[in-house]
Amino acid sequence: MNFIGVDLGGTNIKAGVVDEDANLLARVSIETQADRGPEHVLERMAQAADEARKKAGLKWPDIAAVGVGSPGPMDGKTGIVLECPNLPGWRNVPVVDKMQQKLGVTVYLENDANAAGFGEYWKGAGQGATCMIQLTLGTGVGGGIVINGQVWRGIDDCAAELGHMVIKYDGVRCGCGSHGCIEAYGSATALVRIAREKLDAGRPSILHDWVKSGQKLTAKLVADAAHQGDALAREIYREVGTYLGVAIASFCNIFNPEKVVLSGGMSQAGDILFGPIREEVNRRAVAPAARRVQILPASLGDDAGIIGAAGCAMQRYKEGRRV
Amino acid sequence: MNFIGVDLGGTNIKAGVVDEDANLLARVSIETQADRGPEHVLERMAQAADEARKKAGLKWPDIAAVGVGSPGPMDGKTGIVLECPNLPGWRNVPVVDKMQQKLGVTVYLENDANAAGFGEYWKGAGQGATCMIQLTLGTGVGGGIVINGQVWRGIDDCAAELGHMVIKYDGVRCGCGSHGCIEAYGSATALVRIAREKLDAGRPSILHDWVKSGQKLTAKLVADAAHQGDALAREIYREVGTYLGVAIASFCNIFNPEKVVLSGGMSQAGDILFGPIREEVNRRAVAPAARRVQILPASLGDDAGIIGAAGCAMQRYKEGRRV
Repeated sequence: MNFIGVDLGGTNIKAGVVDEDANLLARVSIETQADRGPEHVLERMAQAADEARKKAGLKWPDIAAVGVGSPGPMDGKTGIVLECPNLPGWRNVPVVDKMQQKLGVTVYLENDANAAGFGEYWKGAGQGATCMIQLTLGTGVGGGIVINGQVWRGIDDCAAELGHMVIKYDGVRCGCGSHGCIEAYGSATALVRIAREKLDAGRPSILHDWVKSGQKLTAKLVADAAHQGDALAREIYREVGTYLGVAIASFCNIFNPEKVVLSGGMSQAGDILFGPIREEVNRRAVAPAARRVQILPASLGDDAGIIGAAGCAMQRYKEGRRV
Repeated sequence: MNFIGVDLGGTNIKAGVVDEDANLLARVSIETQADRGPEHVLERMAQAADEARKKAGLKWPDIAAVGVGSPGPMDGKTGIVLECPNLPGWRNVPVVDKMQQKLGVTVYLENDANAAGFGEYWKGAGQGATCMIQLTLGTGVGGGIVINGQVWRGIDDCAAELGHMVIKYDGVRCGCGSHGCIEAYGSATALVRIAREKLDAGRPSILHDWVKSGQKLTAKLVADAAHQGDALAREIYREVGTYLGVAIASFCNIFNPEKVVLSGGMSQAGDILFGPIREEVNRRAVAPAARRVQILPASLGDDAGIIGAAGCAMQRYKEGRRV
């Protein structure tokens, strides 16, 4: 049995064919062209799925089901995406119905962060964990919770908004309207904000030269500077790592998980990030939970969303679920 | 089938006989006499269980299993309590083996906060919830997580240490060694600390008179003052309720639960506590999770621990588990 995972992003739609053992048989990536509205994007998603199928050398009858990983709040019971901040015009889009009409195959809808988390659990760094917490460090901080092999979606499919756990109730305002969410302290966006504040304060760093020469201040640029021994860049990663460590210590005390998997570009920064995270977790989490937890970079990169969306679809398909 | 739940506390041991429908057929409470050491306390636990059995008019063959709810970290796989801060001399006490020897019946061990949470889920305010979070507001803040009818214990039986989720990473030092845990802001102990700070600062309140006349400053005393219209007492409950609301909003964003149940004496304070909690949850949690969650006072009082310990034992017994 084969499944197709579709990963809907603001810029690109990725799709891939995945077999029952989580092998990615073929993958494609096409532009979302989000500015042309929901109907067009749905058509692009169908096109991406079809291209992936062809690339894998399969016919549609070889595909048991399609899983779509989408951003934004959704109603899992009806297969409707309620809104997508990054996709113009997306309000109450019946993704499951529309995609089923286009493809003639069963379609399941999943939150994209949940899908990425399940992908890492199924095939990546989270393999074998009875309890795995996934944090995606990007523009925001996405989350996924996998317990006993199942994504925990909550009662209204809005669980695992882990980026909006508060670590400082009177802290930095978060895009969600709350204050002090870990998203406002541990995302790539937050890292760049913290870097800019320190640079604007006149702290010496090679980053001044790099930015002046036209390079964009990104989490990756700060990591490059840190790896060249730049003290300020290392301090920035230490600070952000400490914030993430506070949050991960709380997740340890809440879940006592085997693994916490970090994805997104920042997660590839190595010890400059993971060292401070580990120190803070050891400082704050209850001892058995701190000893137990492995804190790991994701291993599937961009494919986690595709593989996870396909895997979630496989689970639901095997359970005989309609949505 | 009947089960006995034993709730081990620093001051009292409570035990009760519970049937399969969570009816409490009989209950007893005896002094723990913790100062006489673990062997004596184990004997007292056996005695309490036996007295409850007699009071219910049952013979030991009528009892399928006994569940012990104990404080402190434990190893669920071996039935050993690793330590108990409130019980002198308790280190690596093999509760399950010892109790089985004394009682001649299968014994299961459960964290006391998990047991109380399961009790509220099974028979109390949490009934019917697919996902329920329990917070016990007392000297500390205990936690319980029930998902799909099962207590989530974590990999090392140390999950649901919900009192040690951080709400302010640079905040008040917590007894656990971390800083800014909700336990340091939302427990009865924290409420009294906050009250004392405000009273010491000379803020006017009827509490000054009450304390001078010899009454002890407790969460209950502050609630009584608040209910008589004392402005400072209301402010204290509002502040603590706001902190608890921050934490509960995070639990909403993490779990998207149907119910959050608050137990312990403070949980009976009514609107002066639940009003500010609800406001803060509405302010901070993602909208569908905030709309969904019911935030409720516990309904079983002191019996939650007994009923829950018996219920957890019943589940394990029916699954044929050895521990």
